[in-house]
Parts: sequence; structure tokens; C-alpha cells
Amino acid sequence: MMPDCRAPRIVIEQVTPQVDAGAFPVKRVAGESLAVQADIFADGHDKLAAAVIFRHQDDGEDSTVPMVLLNNDRWEARFTVALTGFYTFYVTAWFDPFASFVADYSAKAKAGVAKAADLAEGQALVRAALGADAPVDAQSLLSVEMRARMAASGPRRFVARSADLTIDVDREAAGFSSWYEIFPRSQSGDASRHGNFDDVIAQLPRIARMGFDVLYLPPIHPIGRTNRKGRNNALRAGPDDPGSPYAIGAEEGGHTAIHPELGTLPDFKRLIAAAADAGLEIALDFAIQCAPDHPWLREHPEWFAWQADGSIKYAENPPKKYEDIVNVDFYAPASMPALWLALRDIVAFWADQGIRIFRVDNPHTKPLPFWEWMIADIRSRNHDVLFLSEAFTRPKMMYRLAKIGFSQSYTYFTWRNTKLELESYMNELTSAPVRDFFRPHFFVNTPDINPYFLQSAGRAGFLIRAALAATLTGLWGVYNGFELCEAEPVPGREEYMGSEKYEIRAWDHEREPNIIKEITALNAIRRENAALQHLTGIEFLPCNNAQVLYFRRFSDDGNVLLIAISLEPHSFQDVMIELPLWRWGIADDGDLKAEDLMRDENFIWHGKYQPVRLNPFEMPFCIWRVSPAQV
Amino acid sequence: MMPDCRAPRIVIEQVTPQVDAGAFPVKRVAGESLAVQADIFADGHDKLAAAVIFRHQDDGEDSTVPMVLLNNDRWEARFTVALTGFYTFYVTAWFDPFASFVADYSAKAKAGVAKAADLAEGQALVRAALGADAPVDAQSLLSVEMRARMAASGPRRFVARSADLTIDVDREAAGFSSWYEIFPRSQSGDASRHGNFDDVIAQLPRIARMGFDVLYLPPIHPIGRTNRKGRNNALRAGPDDPGSPYAIGAEEGGHTAIHPELGTLPDFKRLIAAAADAGLEIALDFAIQCAPDHPWLREHPEWFAWQADGSIKYAENPPKKYEDIVNVDFYAPASMPALWLALRDIVAFWADQGIRIFRVDNPHTKPLPFWEWMIADIRSRNHDVLFLSEAFTRPKMMYRLAKIGFSQSYTYFTWRNTKLELESYMNELTSAPVRDFFRPHFFVNTPDINPYFLQSAGRAGFLIRAALAATLTGLWGVYNGFELCEAEPVPGREEYMGSEKYEIRAWDHEREPNIIKEITALNAIRRENAALQHLTGIEFLPCNNAQVLYFRRFSDDGNVLLIAISLEPHSFQDVMIELPLWRWGIADDGDLKAEDLMRDENFIWHGKYQPVRLNPFEMPFCIWRVSPAQV
Repeated sequence: MMPDCRAPRIVIEQVTPQVDAGAFPVKRVAGESLAVQADIFADGHDKLAAAVIFRHQDDGEDSTVPMVLLNNDRWEARFTVALTGFYTFYVTAWFDPFASFVADYSAKAKAGVAKAADLAEGQALVRAALGADAPVDAQSLLSVEMRARMAASGPRRFVARSADLTIDVDREAAGFSSWYEIFPRSQSGDASRHGNFDDVIAQLPRIARMGFDVLYLPPIHPIGRTNRKGRNNALRAGPDDPGSPYAIGAEEGGHTAIHPELGTLPDFKRLIAAAADAGLEIALDFAIQCAPDHPWLREHPEWFAWQADGSIKYAENPPKKYEDIVNVDFYAPASMPALWLALRDIVAFWADQGIRIFRVDNPHTKPLPFWEWMIADIRSRNHDVLFLSEAFTRPKMMYRLAKIGFSQSYTYFTWRNTKLELESYMNELTSAPVRDFFRPHFFVNTPDINPYFLQSAGRAGFLIRAALAATLTGLWGVYNGFELCEAEPVPGREEYMGSEKYEIRAWDHEREPNIIKEITALNAIRRENAALQHLTGIEFLPCNNAQVLYFRRFSDDGNVLLIAISLEPHSFQDVMIELPLWRWGIADDGDLKAEDLMRDENFIWHGKYQPVRLNPFEMPFCIWRVSPAQV
Repeated sequence: MMPDCRAPRIVIEQVTPQVDAGAFPVKRVAGESLAVQADIFADGHDKLAAAVIFRHQDDGEDSTVPMVLLNNDRWEARFTVALTGFYTFYVTAWFDPFASFVADYSAKAKAGVAKAADLAEGQALVRAALGADAPVDAQSLLSVEMRARMAASGPRRFVARSADLTIDVDREAAGFSSWYEIFPRSQSGDASRHGNFDDVIAQLPRIARMGFDVLYLPPIHPIGRTNRKGRNNALRAGPDDPGSPYAIGAEEGGHTAIHPELGTLPDFKRLIAAAADAGLEIALDFAIQCAPDHPWLREHPEWFAWQADGSIKYAENPPKKYEDIVNVDFYAPASMPALWLALRDIVAFWADQGIRIFRVDNPHTKPLPFWEWMIADIRSRNHDVLFLSEAFTRPKMMYRLAKIGFSQSYTYFTWRNTKLELESYMNELTSAPVRDFFRPHFFVNTPDINPYFLQSAGRAGFLIRAALAATLTGLWGVYNGFELCEAEPVPGREEYMGSEKYEIRAWDHEREPNIIKEITALNAIRRENAALQHLTGIEFLPCNNAQVLYFRRFSDDGNVLLIAISLEPHSFQDVMIELPLWRWGIADDGDLKAEDLMRDENFIWHGKYQPVRLNPFEMPFCIWRVSPAQV
């Protein structure tokens, strides 16, 4: 067995960030700074140098950032990813003979044993790199200027490089936005009149005033009539029941058509434009299942699974059957690739109408290779399209969907209520590698989830959950009604009575109790404080009350918030919080300047421990912007 | 962009054990059981099945072990690696339509909605797999027997597989052995007479009686005369000074020659045989550096770095110079590959003489690609050769040497003295992935390390360090003199006065104080208790004294030891230990049978908390073998 003497002599390993050894890209948003680190070392004591080389997919040019040694063989370089789309990067390292010469000669000089002959190696390196005229006296050789020139132009030996790694850069809204969900048909203000896009346009000022920036609509397509579901998910619909918008497709058309009662495509485009004027972006639903009336059953029966007796196979999860829904068969011979292309074309169609955010219904019940390809295909043309994964399923599938391309993901947040649950879930979400591929979107409720906690928590409970969702991550979402403290359940179930999935509702947007003012304040605080505009930058802090979640949020630009949220909606919570004075090098008896952002009060805190009372009948949480009292 | 509809539908990820995404093998010893786990899942709710497929490098046949679902999409299979050498394995998974049929039909039957027609799918699957005669009534279809037959013979759809991973299986001594180190020239019993291999043979019964099973000898080759070092590392040797055996090579020969005063090659082979008869295996030193008199400087000047003035470049670490040592240049043009092959041939030469363990001196100052190739080359012919890395350097280099092939490694153990240090170091070493590639060898001392702790700790200190090393891992080592409580330092330094590296010593093996009896007992306990024969199977337990390390050692076969070691050699330590009764499901007021293995006493412990007094003047540690009192 012969040796490979040219095998890399320098080790480059544990390059971060990376996901599954580079099998999937690391996610960032445009404008973020990326810190690439690697363990770099080699045999012996010769000096190494290293750099990160990166390139954007649409750019022919490599960029180079020198790495610096942190400690313990760990090197780092930082750079900003300015553009959306994919970047690739790798780490390279080499022996730097001139740096070794400088280190060796300096050590000898310091010990008083340097001789003129010891300069020869450095002189030869400089003359070879910079020409025979270069100054080579001892002072010039060891100068900062010469080291810089030689770092750039000197010889590099045993150059090694890591594998390529990929960064998937989304626009900022991928990491920071505030969603509001409505059923367009419920926007007329009259439960007996089907709302349309103009009714939605009329609601835009109200929604924008609350500070939301994404308006998410469930499917807007024609709704099937065969086996249509009635109110409260009844097996049979009454004659006036509108049906579930998730039973997609009727004689009026399928996934690229609009339900006639909502309006026309031009109406919809008017809505998109009006929303944009109001600072709102429209997010559409992409739900693949078909109603039995969907045109595809007629036009493309070969994309569906048929029984031996010629009947269609309805969706089922034995023993349950879903007779209003038919699933396409991704692996029917005729489906590959015709069905896949047709589904991609649906998304492309709506992207062409100006939609840049898709909320995807139940992606975990469709093949992963489909999503991986479809999202890459759409984003190869429009880097700024975002996909939200609605996969309420087992954790590894949820993470995998994020790895293969989903920009954001629904989470278990709605079922995390205690301090231990919230801290451990946040620690999981903000630890590598999860934080590098999974963007958790904290919805306080959805049309399918009327959380048990809210059913009995009263107004204080809504304030608690709003404060948690709005401050724990950069992405939060509210389904219409939450701000009005709507919580009436189907008894014993986590569902809304009179669910809008099956009937048209009329909402009184001024009814009491409500938390509209507080949601408006939360969204304003989010916009004004960079610390709340991303997932990372969170630290749970000590306090002496297990019913109080107390944490620090911070961003690179020095914005720091301290946040204390009671988790108990029925009683006052007294808590002694510990101010992290040491983060600013302030002694335990020092001062911290604080602004109470929900109450618009400024004051000075003296000393490390501070008593706080959280009042469920007024506001069960506090958000303080803090900074050192003496600057 | 066209989709790849054939891309794997089933996800297989997070396969463990693995090291750096499969870049390096996982280490095990022959006879060990390996638990392979993986996350396996796919879209939808159809049933999956999975298996591990493995194969030994010398075997043409694959073996298959079915995996079982643990929980949360995590699957596992266990198998035993019986042979030394490399195994490869991979994980494979598939949709199991018959299992899905059984699950779906059973759900319908339980809900009382199963119809005869619902059997059709299962019947078709059975007939296709087992023939038209197979029984297909409902009872037969759902029977345990049918499920087993169909699991083996039924259809498998969407079969996916992981990448290949590698297991490097060493013989048992790689993970469990007790080393003793001597300088052969010091074995005559008379400091004025150079010892030889027959003197070593005379010492074998004494060493074997203590229970050691590896006898490690520093280099046995001719020693250079040019710039030879004197006693206590003096710059110039006196006329009778024997020199450091690490200055290898003289006119009598180089790395394949034997220092004439030690004996001849036949003498050495007699030593190997006599050691084997005594239950001892000889480990040799492989130190690449050359004395200036090494024959290679004359025969292969092209393998060394020469100065412009024609002089040789001595080893240096500026400002220090090592004028008794010359380093080969692995990357001189003529060295590639001639020098690499010549070095490999040295190891191969000693392997041919019967040596199966090499302790490698300072591997971190030689190129990693050399070690990776050399070790693989030697082990491709002799799977049972072991290499111990003596790299006292930064942690990542130490770990990398283990990854690329070293079987065992020296550690920082000698500098870990406090409870916090020992617990955190053990937690690092026993956590994945470190435990899967790095086998820590705990030497209590070496010719280069006279630990500060021992210099002032007295006999109790030697007992403490022996107990720690002998019980914390499967590998421990003693350099001659430790058992005699030898600790005289070069003042202020961590070195031995009168170091055997530079002079011949005579040892009185009966001198007092000594801990020969205790070392003998420790080695006997190690041999009799599987719990002490590996690195893993350790849990630190609660006790109320920060000067006491208290832990549980356990093995798969039910052998359980509780061990309490005082870390304070000068005073009694009273401690309340907590018995882990819950490990056996015993209530807090229950009983545990205990054998005090160092004192040969049996008793019953009643209740969870037990007071213990550790006496430095007698024995500052306890080892109890425990089991439930009622079986």
C-alpha cells in the first residue's frame, strides 16, 4: 500500500455553521452577518494562516475574508450576506513561512540569541515575494507593514481547503414578520352575506393599524360540493353552508381559479396592491388535496388512486375517512413528473400574480423529494419567495421539512405553557444546528387550534400568549378573533365553536374584552427594537418565581430588552428579578437605566435584585429597554 | 428544472454511532455489542420497516439485523462485532405494505367498521408473496406467523439506504489493559552495571504478580554519541553517561538495531517469549527522531533538511535548540515516498519480531497523513497491532490522531486532580462522539511527568491516583517507581530527579513506603469485574463532600461497582453517599448487598444514605460490588 504524500497536511474540521455535514444549507436573512468558524491545525509549530472564500450564486467573483485565531485551534471570519439566494463558501488554510520566520526570529531576539544569519530565511522570502529591491534589514522585516504585505503576497505552502458549504439567504421578512389571518368570506360584517375581496380591502386599515405586516388568507379557490362538510364539521352540509375552503376544486375550476363569490383575478390583484399600500403582504395557502369535484379528476384521472371497482379512493386515516377529500398520487406512473410539474405550476402561477409567501398545508403528508425540488425550482427564479410549513407532526419530520427548503415552520408553541416547557423549547430552537435551518413561527391560535389554555384564561391569558409569541421569536401570528379574546370551544375539544372553516362569521371588531391596544403596542415595540427581530439573542435569567418567565433579548447593535411575563392569568405574581449587570461590567450595587415600553415610563434601577409585581388584571408582563446608567 | 421523482422518499438520518459524518471509523473491541440507531421516517402514515446490513472486511457475506422502532422515529438494531479489522454497515428502510394493511385493517376492526372487502389488499399481497395456496382468511392474515413471514418475504417499496459507515475493531487489549513501564538498562539491580534483556526477564515474575499485562519499554536502539545529554538533562554528557534512549541511532545501527549492551535480537525475542509466558505483552517505543550519528544521515542525507552552509539543521523550538536530535523531513522531494516507506518498514520489522503494541513518541510533530497511511498499512496485514499516541498537546490534535487510527491515547489525566476537573474530563471522554474514537489511557506518571500532586501527597496520594486511574477507564499505566512512592523532583519542576532518561538507576523493589499490595489488589479487581474493563458505563453520583469522587461503574452483564475515592491525601474525609437504589427499583428504605473488594468484607446496606469515612493513613478509597439484597 503506497502512501499519498500529497494528502492534506493541514486539518480543517468542525466548520460551522453547517447542517448535517453540509447536506443542507444554513439559513440566514439578507444583511445578516455570518461568523464562520473552523478548527484548523497541523503537525509541528509552524504558523498557519486561513481565510473564508465565498460567492453568491449570481456572482462570478469570489470574495475572501481572512480568518483570525480565537483560541484552542478555533479560527473565525465574519462577513455579511447582502443578497437573497444561495451563497457557497469554504475554508482554506496554509503554512505561512514568513509568519513562522517572524515568530521564530522574535523568540530568539527576545531570548537574546538571535544572530544576523537568522535573518537569512526571512530575507529570502521577502526578496522572492516582493523583489530584490525590498528592504530586508531586521527592522523592516519585522514591521507591521511588512507582515501585512507578506500575508498578502508571501508564499503559501500545503494549502488545504474544506468542502463547499451553502448558505440560503432569504429576505428579512423570512425571519421577522407579524402575521394576521382572516377568512375573506367573513369580512362583510354580515354573516348572511359572503364577503369578497373588496370587503377585505376595507379591513386593511384596521389590520395595518395593529402593526401586522403579513395578511394570510386560507384557500381562495372554488369549493367542492360533493360530500361538502356542514357547520362545525357536520358530515352533511345544509343548502346554504359554504363548505371548507380546504376542499379545493369545483366546476368553476381548481387551484388556479378563484371562488366566484370572492371576486375575480383582477379583484384579487387589486387586493394585493391595496394591501401593499397599507404595508401588508398577502400570504396564500397551498393545500394540495382536491375536492371530488376538482377538474383534475376529470382531466387527469391518471394522477389519482382508483379502486379495483372503478371508484375513487377517498382520503383516510383508518378508521377515519375523509369523503370530501381526494389525494393525488405522487407515485402513480403517469404522475411522474406530470403531476409534480402541474403542482409546481400552481405555485408559479400565483407567484406570477405577485404572491411571495405561501403557507403550505400539511406538507408532511406529501413526499419530501417533491417539496425539495419544488421550492428550489420556484426560488431559483424568485429568490424572495417564502414557504411556511404547516406540519403539526413529529419533531424530526418538522425539522426535515425546514432542512429541505421551507423558510418558516409552525411549532409546538401553542402547547408550551409552563416555564420549564417554554425555556426548554426555546433552548432547543436556538441551539445549533436547529437555529441554522428552522425558523419557528409562533402562532397564538389558528382556525384549527383554540388552545385549552385560552379557553379558561380570560383576557389576561390572551395578553400572556401574545407577549410570549411577540417577544420570544421574530415571527408571530394571530388568527382573527384572538385580539377579541374569542375562545368558545367545541366542548372538551381544542376547536372553535362555529369554526370559520365551515361557516361565514361576522366579527364585531370593537367588542370587549379585547387586547387590540396591547397587540398594537407589542407590534410597535417589535418594529422599534432589533432585539425582537430574530430568533437568536435570547438568554433566560434567574428569578424567584416559577410562574414568571424572565429573559433578556439582545441584538448585535446593542439593543437590550429585559422581559418578564407571568404565566399565571388568575393572580398577582410577585417576583424578584436579577438584573444581568455583569453584562455591562456593572457592579452588583450599580445602576441600570430602564424604559418600561408598555407603560412609557423611564427610571433608574439601583442594584442587582429588583422586585416586580405582575398584575393579570392590568398587564401580566413587562418589557424594559435597558442600558447602563452612566455612559 | 425537472424533478427527480426517484429521489429517496424515506429519510434515514442521524445514524449513530458515527464520527465526523462517517469521515472516520467508529472504534470498538472484538466481542463488543454495537447499537446502531437512526432516525427513519417518511411522509404519510404508511408503515416502515428497517434493517442494518453489515460486513467484515475479510468476509464476502452481508449480515442483516432488523431494526426496531424505539420512539420518536428513532430505530435501533444491535449486533456483535466478533472479529478484529474493519466492518462496514449501512441502514436500509422501506415501506412495508403488508404491515400497513394489518395496521389499517386492525384499526377498522377495532372501530367495528371493517368489511370483508377491506381484506382484499392483504390477500393480494400474501398471494403475490407466498403463492396462491397461502391461507388468506382474516385470522390467518392477522396472525403473528403471517406477519413474520410477510416481514421476510413481503414486498418492499421505496427502499432507501444510508451511506456506508465503518467500524474499526481492535482486540480486547485495546480497551482493557494495565501497563507497566521500565527502562531495561535499569534492571540489573546495580546502577553501575548496564542492565540487559536477561535482567528484564528476571523482573517479569515481580511485574506479573502485580497484575500488569503490558510491559512497555522505551527505545531499545543504539544511542547517539554526538551532543549526548548528561544526567538530569545536562547539556554535555560525562564519559560514563548512557545518554537518552530517545536520541536514536549510532554507528551500531538505527531504528531496527538493538543497543548492544541490552543484548541481541535473539535475546530480545527470548524476552518476548518469556513475557508471554508470564502473561505480559511487550510494547515498544516508536520515536522517529534521529541522533546525529544515525546511519540514515550518511545513507539518506536527502531525507533531512540541510542548511545553505552544508550543516544539518538540529531540532529546535525557538529559542530552544535540541542539538542531540535531528528530524527527518517528510516533505523533502526525495522523502516522498522513500522515507515514508522506510519508517513504515521499521514498524513492520518489529511487528515481524512479534511486537503487537507500539507506543508512538510525539506523533503530533509529524504529518497526520503519514500516520493515517502507516497505521492503516500495518493493520491491513496485522489487524491486532495497537498504537498508543503520546501526544501531550492541544485537545483537537489529540483527538484527530485518534480519529486517523491511533488505538489509544495519553491524556490530561495527570493534571486533573479536583472533583470538578475529573468529572468534567470524564464526561467529555465518555460522551459521543469522543468515546467512539478516543481511548484514553490513564498513566499515573511517566519518565517525563512527576506530577506536582504526588510530590507532596505522600503514600495516600499514590493510592488516590492509582485508584482513580485503575477504576475510571479500562486502560491505566504505571511507570516503574510509582509503586514505591518515588516522587523526588527536580526542584520546582514536574520532573524526576535522577531521571532514568539520562542515567541508569537501581531500584529496591521492597523499600517502604510502597503500594505494591494495593496495586496488586486493584489489578485483580479489574480482572474480575467487567465494569472496569471499558471506558463507558460510568455515572457520577451525589455525595455531600467535594473532596470525594463517588461514582457507579457498570457493564452490560449486570456487574455494578460503587466507588468512593478521597481526593485529599492529608485528612480523614467523612461523606454521606447516596446509593442509587432506584436503578434496581428498590425503595429508598430498601437493602443493597455490598462486598468491600479492597477489604474482603460483605455486608448489607439498609437505606439510601450511607455514611463513609475515608482514611488516608490506611486506604483513601472504597470499591464496593453491589447487588439487590433480595433476588
